[in-house]
Amino acid sequence: MGKVHIEENVTTEKKTEYSLVRVKGTWTRKLGKKVNKDKFDCVSAAKIYESVSEKGTSWTVVTPIVFTYKVTESLGLLDPSNDTLLLGHITDSQQMEDIKKTNKPLKRFVVVDQEVYKIYGPKLTEYLEARNVQYKILALPTTEENKSMEMAMEILEEVNNFSLDRRTEPIIAIGGGVCLDIVGLAASLYRRRTPYIRVPTTLLSYIDASVGAKTGVNFANCKNKLGAYIPPTAVFLDLSFIQTVPRRHISNGLAEMLKMALVKHRELFELLEKHGRSLLDTRFQGDNSVYRCNHLDAPSQATRIAITTMLEELAPNLWEDDLNRLVDFGHLISPALEMKVLPSLLHGEAVNIDMAYMVYVSQESGLLSEEEKQRIISCMVSLELPVWHQECTMELIQKSLQDRLKHSGGLVRMPLPVGLGQADIFNNTSYEILLKAYEKWCDELSMSSQSNCDP
Amino acid sequence: MGKVHIEENVTTEKKTEYSLVRVKGTWTRKLGKKVNKDKFDCVSAAKIYESVSEKGTSWTVVTPIVFTYKVTESLGLLDPSNDTLLLGHITDSQQMEDIKKTNKPLKRFVVVDQEVYKIYGPKLTEYLEARNVQYKILALPTTEENKSMEMAMEILEEVNNFSLDRRTEPIIAIGGGVCLDIVGLAASLYRRRTPYIRVPTTLLSYIDASVGAKTGVNFANCKNKLGAYIPPTAVFLDLSFIQTVPRRHISNGLAEMLKMALVKHRELFELLEKHGRSLLDTRFQGDNSVYRCNHLDAPSQATRIAITTMLEELAPNLWEDDLNRLVDFGHLISPALEMKVLPSLLHGEAVNIDMAYMVYVSQESGLLSEEEKQRIISCMVSLELPVWHQECTMELIQKSLQDRLKHSGGLVRMPLPVGLGQADIFNNTSYEILLKAYEKWCDELSMSSQSNCDP
Repeated sequence: MGKVHIEENVTTEKKTEYSLVRVKGTWTRKLGKKVNKDKFDCVSAAKIYESVSEKGTSWTVVTPIVFTYKVTESLGLLDPSNDTLLLGHITDSQQMEDIKKTNKPLKRFVVVDQEVYKIYGPKLTEYLEARNVQYKILALPTTEENKSMEMAMEILEEVNNFSLDRRTEPIIAIGGGVCLDIVGLAASLYRRRTPYIRVPTTLLSYIDASVGAKTGVNFANCKNKLGAYIPPTAVFLDLSFIQTVPRRHISNGLAEMLKMALVKHRELFELLEKHGRSLLDTRFQGDNSVYRCNHLDAPSQATRIAITTMLEELAPNLWEDDLNRLVDFGHLISPALEMKVLPSLLHGEAVNIDMAYMVYVSQESGLLSEEEKQRIISCMVSLELPVWHQECTMELIQKSLQDRLKHSGGLVRMPLPVGLGQADIFNNTSYEILLKAYEKWCDELSMSSQSNCDP
Repeated sequence: MGKVHIEENVTTEKKTEYSLVRVKGTWTRKLGKKVNKDKFDCVSAAKIYESVSEKGTSWTVVTPIVFTYKVTESLGLLDPSNDTLLLGHITDSQQMEDIKKTNKPLKRFVVVDQEVYKIYGPKLTEYLEARNVQYKILALPTTEENKSMEMAMEILEEVNNFSLDRRTEPIIAIGGGVCLDIVGLAASLYRRRTPYIRVPTTLLSYIDASVGAKTGVNFANCKNKLGAYIPPTAVFLDLSFIQTVPRRHISNGLAEMLKMALVKHRELFELLEKHGRSLLDTRFQGDNSVYRCNHLDAPSQATRIAITTMLEELAPNLWEDDLNRLVDFGHLISPALEMKVLPSLLHGEAVNIDMAYMVYVSQESGLLSEEEKQRIISCMVSLELPVWHQECTMELIQKSLQDRLKHSGGLVRMPLPVGLGQADIFNNTSYEILLKAYEKWCDELSMSSQSNCDP
């Protein structure tokens, strides 16, 4: 996908390239790459290549679909004076005017994680009532164990009963990554694509699930084995939700933030080294510790860097056609580990254990100095993240890398840090290095980490 | 989706456009629309727009995904000397060489409609054995009544047990439209997108389901209410499958062919007027009735025009962002009719009843002459298609058009023929015209058609 190679070896083939133009509502093929745009109502970016041989005709269709989505910070999303939750996704000013002119109440279907609903349910209801919205709130236990097609279908039944207009009434998901992923999948399936909005309420989903295009549910005991690549129409980020997140779940989110720091952003790493503990203590609500000279407090600074670095890696590779992905750091072994010990490790915790081991692999490969390794591990510990796990055995590591080979076009494509805030992709790390790193990892960290691994 | 409108009314906003460039495996934002391509490993087509105001920061991601798919005619797909079924989807010549060099057997998961399997099962098995393929054939009763998420999940369980490489081992679907749609959806969900191949075995799916991007299953008694817009990686068209299709199902396919003729192609209409009956009699297997001077027999000529006209309308609008679709002709009332009387009407039959009524609406609106109307209805009758149905009541018609209003951005967007082989979209057809047309339609056709409506 993405590239067209027309075979050149069959000599009797006659090949033709067509552009597509619209005249009076009808699309027609026009010979050639270039067409005079003034002569037609519309010229499409799509092409059709026709190839005729004695065996028959073959048509190759090449057509781009442009995805547009918005990630917006907005404090006080549930404050009735703030209309972001209801209108923030609209980018067409005419549409916005039309909505503001009409008296018709807006209609919204909202899926909320059950635990989030316990805390924010009354505020959410109040908000929707105050803004005269015709709404249905569906509160669901969106845990990793429940992340299944059955729950997506349950949502779809309710969406269908609610009878929404799939063009103008986006489904709103409020919760952690699991909630955003399931709702995203359900919405993507409904009428082949219904817009949806992500409102992350955990630190992890704030910087991770919220910014990409991936939706999914677990299947056959594998994480996110079923899903789609359909970005939300909008993401609304409100850091104030994070104040009610349990401390362990703040650490959980810090793991993915640390990932971005390690592979792309030394400054973010240094921020986490210095302020990570206080970010954890204050649950990202502090505004006093102004960081450096850009007038941003540490919580805003840290989350913005995490989001922009993530967007940089996602935007050019939204559908993951490029298999060399730095953001996969920490995600080679962790999926199997997380599913194996479910529910004892949170996603970020499993990712952190994977990253900690990989840091040892980097150091063993001569890509990281001993001192850099120590700094990274110390930072992880200060963020109260587990850096080792007894179930992360050499066998599990090997099996995970084998599986990855299979799904990554025959190469392991292992992202490894090469210094602080920089990483590269490696394909030829030997078993000896993997094993040596494993032994050293166990020697140095197994004792210190045992208490961190279970809740 | 598709257009970016950045709001211009907030004066305190600071907006920045970023391009994305790759340096040593890491993507980085670069200020501005234009970047010097020579300076970087790779420049992405994606853009990030950042907008900073006192309320916070907002990022808009705009990124195109290019879909490429191939529709290939290939007679004798199950002939062991023909490698199209196994390798015809490959467009990269290096990949093709690699496969041909290696001795590793290919691995393919094949889903076949149960009825098709009864006829072609032995030939298919023989083919896969002869070509030393490691395979699993799953034969399923892919009827309209079974077109559900449950069946998609059943396929996914088997796919998962078979353990295929989602990058290089496409899932093959062989059957009618229902089979191709369900398998397409299952494949699109598996690991967020596994390539799949469509092999249509009915005339209807040959010219319709095979060429587009839509997959789907029925849900809550609505046709294709859940699905995705993911085109197959390849479609292989073998007219010889059609010889075992029951006569009624040939008529069924002729209805969708007639649709393309009526909205876009007068020549195809005239071909169907003249040769339609003989195409039906010979099940598209004749090669004697050479049509005009292009040396193509009528079956090839008719199917090619149907496919190319369909591709013209689909390629520029693969995800149906443009709601004004000529190919919706015959599909405004038929979905409700088809589901209401299930399983008594085939899809094409329901479409034809819808088209017949719409022809009366056209004539009543002064868009078609009485003679043109007569020619169209006569052609339908000669193709042995029902032109009226007692369950297609004025109530059902009105309800269908109301529903359409809701899902088409407030406009009914009714495609109506304006002469033979030409159509346009209309939004203001009055109830009076709809009713007059309905009465005339019943007067003229209710008697002649009663026998056609049930099997």
